[in-house]
Amino acid sequence: MDKKKNISMAVIKRLPKYHRYLQEMLNNDIDRISSKDLSEKIGFTASQIRQDLNCFGDFGQQGYGYNVRDLYTAIGNILGLTREYKTIIVGAGNIGQAIANYTRFEKVGFSLQGIFDINPKLTGMKIRDVEIRDIDELSSYVKTNHVDIGIICVPRINAQKVCDILVNNGIKGIWNFAPVDLNVPEDVVTENVHLSESLMTLSYLINEKEKDQQKSEK
Amino acid sequence: MDKKKNISMAVIKRLPKYHRYLQEMLNNDIDRISSKDLSEKIGFTASQIRQDLNCFGDFGQQGYGYNVRDLYTAIGNILGLTREYKTIIVGAGNIGQAIANYTRFEKVGFSLQGIFDINPKLTGMKIRDVEIRDIDELSSYVKTNHVDIGIICVPRINAQKVCDILVNNGIKGIWNFAPVDLNVPEDVVTENVHLSESLMTLSYLINEKEKDQQKSEK
Repeated sequence: MDKKKNISMAVIKRLPKYHRYLQEMLNNDIDRISSKDLSEKIGFTASQIRQDLNCFGDFGQQGYGYNVRDLYTAIGNILGLTREYKTIIVGAGNIGQAIANYTRFEKVGFSLQGIFDINPKLTGMKIRDVEIRDIDELSSYVKTNHVDIGIICVPRINAQKVCDILVNNGIKGIWNFAPVDLNVPEDVVTENVHLSESLMTLSYLINEKEKDQQKSEK
Repeated sequence: MDKKKNISMAVIKRLPKYHRYLQEMLNNDIDRISSKDLSEKIGFTASQIRQDLNCFGDFGQQGYGYNVRDLYTAIGNILGLTREYKTIIVGAGNIGQAIANYTRFEKVGFSLQGIFDINPKLTGMKIRDVEIRDIDELSSYVKTNHVDIGIICVPRINAQKVCDILVNNGIKGIWNFAPVDLNVPEDVVTENVHLSESLMTLSYLINEKEKDQQKSEK
């Protein structure tokens, strides 16, 4: 796997989708697939698929196609899904609770260890056996328990403050749901889920589609 | 605004971020900004910003910079935020409830009209004054009320079925939280929020960062 050099984020962002489709195939007992058939399922061109997978190593054989389990395992490796990640959620509001209740993440190795909130009415309550703790315990908890990933679900104005606490106590990655861009040092990575921005992309697309239709009706 | 031709999704995806930063500036009574200062705030290069905005028209003046309110309004126009969108949520589970409780969307014109679920225990309950209805009413509700956007928060296996009902009753756009790619006809647009994929991108980034650090320690 020494091929990996300067792989674009566009390629990286496609890998979880490959992983999802390959998992479905495994569930359906499909054990090999041509890049053409994979292309039809996943909606990328066959040449795109070959290019993408070539970034990471030599998968697939001429005339045979891809071994689904091997490819699934390899992509899982690339995505870092071969280990467990300790995660915590900060902010037990709507989004925080929804994420805490989402069991799908546990299955791929993201284990929820703690939930933190500033609201004393929530502390002591449990979501899926995980206790909601007071935000004052956040700093020592992260440090003592070697938490890998902090999931930030607090309001925008508190997000950077929470982020700083996480970073100062050794967190490696931040999954950020607050509608703000966080400042982190170089050794920490962030991934944002900005729901408003996604919804605005949708409204853009709706409007463009309508304009196109109006044009074609003229 | 006749400049708009073949604008890449990468540019489109950046527009909501401009919108968010410009809104913050308006809130802080900043009424003009140079592309250099905007660049420092938003983290894109000044030349990227000029290029992005040039796709849509002539914003900004040499030596003056951008008028914040004009640019905010123009980007809002491009994003289609000048009208109201009637939205409904299908699936009142964790994510559906979280989205229903999120008031931020209303402020930019996305108005929640109805929530639908298959679970009879939930029907009749309300989230923020919006009643949860039985899924059997979905089809007629969407048709009668001219709903613009359907927000799909049902489990993966039901998502395409729900999507088909929405599409057959005239929905224009689908905001999809189910971990599946939906098939829609050409006149309907979709925008996905695939949380697992976002989390896998984060684990990829964490692993890459660790590999880099191990290399540099050698």
